[in-house]
Amino acid sequence: MTSPVPTLHPFDQAIALELQPDGHWLGHTSPAYANMVGPYGGITAAQMLNAVLLHPKRLGDPLALTVNYAAGVADGPFVLQARPARTNRSTQHWVIELLQDGQSVITATAITAQRRDTWGVDDEPMPACPAAADVPSLRVAAPVVWFDRYETKPITGPLPVTWDGSSQNSLSQLWVRDQPARPLDFASLTALADIFFPRVWRRRATHVPAGTVSMTVYFHAGAAQLAATGTGFVMAQARAQAFRNGFFDQTAQLWNEAGEMLVTSHQIVYYKA
Amino acid sequence: MTSPVPTLHPFDQAIALELQPDGHWLGHTSPAYANMVGPYGGITAAQMLNAVLLHPKRLGDPLALTVNYAAGVADGPFVLQARPARTNRSTQHWVIELLQDGQSVITATAITAQRRDTWGVDDEPMPACPAAADVPSLRVAAPVVWFDRYETKPITGPLPVTWDGSSQNSLSQLWVRDQPARPLDFASLTALADIFFPRVWRRRATHVPAGTVSMTVYFHAGAAQLAATGTGFVMAQARAQAFRNGFFDQTAQLWNEAGEMLVTSHQIVYYKA
Repeated sequence: MTSPVPTLHPFDQAIALELQPDGHWLGHTSPAYANMVGPYGGITAAQMLNAVLLHPKRLGDPLALTVNYAAGVADGPFVLQARPARTNRSTQHWVIELLQDGQSVITATAITAQRRDTWGVDDEPMPACPAAADVPSLRVAAPVVWFDRYETKPITGPLPVTWDGSSQNSLSQLWVRDQPARPLDFASLTALADIFFPRVWRRRATHVPAGTVSMTVYFHAGAAQLAATGTGFVMAQARAQAFRNGFFDQTAQLWNEAGEMLVTSHQIVYYKA
Repeated sequence: MTSPVPTLHPFDQAIALELQPDGHWLGHTSPAYANMVGPYGGITAAQMLNAVLLHPKRLGDPLALTVNYAAGVADGPFVLQARPARTNRSTQHWVIELLQDGQSVITATAITAQRRDTWGVDDEPMPACPAAADVPSLRVAAPVVWFDRYETKPITGPLPVTWDGSSQNSLSQLWVRDQPARPLDFASLTALADIFFPRVWRRRATHVPAGTVSMTVYFHAGAAQLAATGTGFVMAQARAQAFRNGFFDQTAQLWNEAGEMLVTSHQIVYYKA
């Protein structure tokens, strides 16, 4: 009789970091989250955040993260440096850098904070949409490996079926969660904030090269909302505000099934047109 | 007969930086942009950006800027370090830090890029509102010095007159420009992105302590839109999406009088409640 070997979820494997004697972290790109070229940007963002989450000097939980995709991450190992630039009584400011062959590939800043109970309100309610249970999961041969790591249920604004150059609005809404299901945490929430295909594909029904240049995530979720979400679905919504001179922006919101705002996020994205 | 001495605009005085032998920059807080305590956050952001704008190795114009307010800037001199972490063919990634007494006070990242002519569209049109010429300028004894550096014409969602704790929406719209008028550039546009009073004041009509923790600015404006704006007014709009556990977010958009999107911007803001 052999005992079953407990296996890590692919997400936990992907964001695993090994502390080095110099205090930096050693990570490795994950084939399970491969994109067309290099890794899915969301998993890179989660790895950047994990260098803070694992840091022995960390104070509080993630409040804000900005990740700048300075260059393509090459498949293979990388070094992560996370430095607490300033530690206050209830907030801490981090400067993070991902290097390959001694060259800066990703830069980032993060803020962690101790949350307190205060008055609060969600000012952007979750849009009316069918419940996750009532929307079928998308079953397609995923065009990229990382997409298989998510269960998605498109609500509106799916990937165009015909690339006919027709003018559309740039809005997409979908239910999404890790596949296999995994309880939501700050790292996986970070990766989810990058779940959307490029808004320019939606807006123009034209398949042009596009890639995130910078992404910012604001965490409204604390431990209570993460626990309430668990392995449930997240309603993810994104749209663009402006396309100009080779760059567009994306504004995104993520809610849990109870309609609680988890994250607001923004990107500036390169596109070729 | 004496020649008139040309005097710098207060904004140019405030963002002036002096190159040091070690390649860092020396700046100084400006009494003209004083806030209740320390400087106006928008002028600090403009100073951070100016360390990139003045840098001899800069490639292209600002595309994105994230400024993290790690601690209060003390009145007096400061050192700015701007490092091009990565230079690509058409984009450049910057890591910036403001120090006082050798301590990190502000961290930032910026991206500059060479803009190209492409297909483009503004997906978030300027909301219908009266023309700048038809809205009277606000005449009040400014509660803080920096507010006198701007000419503002509130359209909707002004600062509450009675702090009665009544529930409001968090939207504000106003026309605004430098006072005295000054042709718009990337630095002054950066400062304008922080023009709004805290959304929690608007939302609750309650005057609680609040301060920006992190601000991101995406520049949709290039040289053409800056030139077209000139000394004209900018329509500035802001609202919150969520207030929870002592932090709220703010999403903002700035258009010129021709209705061209200049900037989309976001903040995460501390509040006491």
